Amino acid sequence: MSLPDRVEIVEVGMRDGLQIESEFVPTDTKIQILNALIDAGVRHFEATSFVSPRAVPQMRDAQEVLQGVRKRPGVVLGALAPNRKGVERALQSQADEIVVFLSATESHNSKNLNRPVEQSLRDIEDIAQLLKDHPIKRKGAIAVAFGCPFEGDVDLGRIRTIFDHFARQGFDAVTLGDTTGMATPRLVRDTVETLRADHPGIKISLHFHNTRGIGLVNVVEGLRAGVTSYESSLAGLGGCPFAPGATGNICTEDLVYLLDEMGVDSGIDLGALIKVAQRLEGIVGRGLPGQLMKAGPRLRLHDYNVAAGAIG
Amino acid sequence: MSLPDRVEIVEVGMRDGLQIESEFVPTDTKIQILNALIDAGVRHFEATSFVSPRAVPQMRDAQEVLQGVRKRPGVVLGALAPNRKGVERALQSQADEIVVFLSATESHNSKNLNRPVEQSLRDIEDIAQLLKDHPIKRKGAIAVAFGCPFEGDVDLGRIRTIFDHFARQGFDAVTLGDTTGMATPRLVRDTVETLRADHPGIKISLHFHNTRGIGLVNVVEGLRAGVTSYESSLAGLGGCPFAPGATGNICTEDLVYLLDEMGVDSGIDLGALIKVAQRLEGIVGRGLPGQLMKAGPRLRLHDYNVAAGAIG
Repeated sequence: MSLPDRVEIVEVGMRDGLQIESEFVPTDTKIQILNALIDAGVRHFEATSFVSPRAVPQMRDAQEVLQGVRKRPGVVLGALAPNRKGVERALQSQADEIVVFLSATESHNSKNLNRPVEQSLRDIEDIAQLLKDHPIKRKGAIAVAFGCPFEGDVDLGRIRTIFDHFARQGFDAVTLGDTTGMATPRLVRDTVETLRADHPGIKISLHFHNTRGIGLVNVVEGLRAGVTSYESSLAGLGGCPFAPGATGNICTEDLVYLLDEMGVDSGIDLGALIKVAQRLEGIVGRGLPGQLMKAGPRLRLHDYNVAAGAIG
Repeated sequence: MSLPDRVEIVEVGMRDGLQIESEFVPTDTKIQILNALIDAGVRHFEATSFVSPRAVPQMRDAQEVLQGVRKRPGVVLGALAPNRKGVERALQSQADEIVVFLSATESHNSKNLNRPVEQSLRDIEDIAQLLKDHPIKRKGAIAVAFGCPFEGDVDLGRIRTIFDHFARQGFDAVTLGDTTGMATPRLVRDTVETLRADHPGIKISLHFHNTRGIGLVNVVEGLRAGVTSYESSLAGLGGCPFAPGATGNICTEDLVYLLDEMGVDSGIDLGALIKVAQRLEGIVGRGLPGQLMKAGPRLRLHDYNVAAGAIG
């Protein structure tokens, strides 16, 4: 089994994870979490999004968050932007990376961006023009890339067209978003192989949700297919608007544990990460899906004399 | 990627899952759940255990459960037994299969069975003698086979010795128990390959816990190594005595979903299984870890007109 030696983890908890929290998390708290994650070795973030503060009040402090995090060489603070206005705000806020997104299906794009896919593709051309002379990193993101909650299976031809569009518009990387946890190992393999054959030079990032419990299985399939970038959320913060009680993004510390145990380096300190995840549970005031923060690392041993018996 | 076409799922929820529930679940309810699972296509169960009713009051109705379930050809109703007395009770109750277990480490065996491993191995010889003229299926189970919460890593040599002992005593199959969720893909691969080289004729069953979030990743590694028997718990019922809030056994319906999506037949109807899992949540009166029963099958589509917007 040939796996990459090293992968990049993009922490999206303060964006994709936090956006469903109805209670506003103070800006300082967000910044503290991001700083603590940098201390734990995380080097790449989707730290916030420049969306309408009316639509997503949790993200209304996007600029303050980006500017408040301690700058450190090698750390990429990215921000999601749905349109030209969001991109302009991200540029003003000196984000290190802009993530421009659309959905692969008409229904999801209409729900999310209130326009046809064709118009979003033209918006991307416009944004690419705007970014032309900026040194900022640019990443595309394709939502519902592995299935749409309204339309079901998504034709791989649609994904190829959008991926190709990002590539031709000068984007460095494209994220395949498993927005509602519909990715499966076969789909991951087919999609990654096809897109890499189309555009060997564009970095693919995989953004899985654990909505149906197999998010980490899909990561392993991605690793086997040679993908070296994965997006995840601290403590598994997040959810699914279509399934009350279901989990959202795959959990960063569980992912780091898996990578550690498979001999794939992420550069992140699992013990330090677990401590930040536990703080996050306190901040949102409820239990979160991450397992490692409850069970501890594999070799955190227990005292025989105080443990209860346990059959089986 | 070459996977088995078909695997057997052994449902252990009414034993390993239920044993940590402090509130007694009525015998009739247990029987109803088992019957509903049979209707959903489950064909193999660890349905109860013949342990001390004082130690595990939840299992005090072992005989009534076994005798109350509707008999059907091809259905195997197994029972766990820790010692000769338990085996005798299982025989009297006409279990279809007896699962005899011990732990791979001295400390865990002492905590669980209150005796040294050496003595447990002699007990197994005694039990094998007792079972000699019975047509009953006999399965061995090795707890903490992938790591011990007291001792950490477990030498594969110990597992080989115990596995070999079961084989020489006429057991048909051996379960490798990942009692506190310490299995990793590498360990699964190494362990399965070594034991199969030792005893190609003995069926290996894998019993994973999802304590550290990678239970289904370990299943996929087992599938790749050719293992065709997996133990899991409906709705992910269960837990870990060492980690409050951590999950226990891997979840049966999430496993069936994964197998379906990988083209591996389990003979189980996912839709029917989800309905039983949802009933189980009602019975224990709290949310359980299973994801599919919250998110629904992959292509359960949502109505565009009633769905809220969802960015990313």
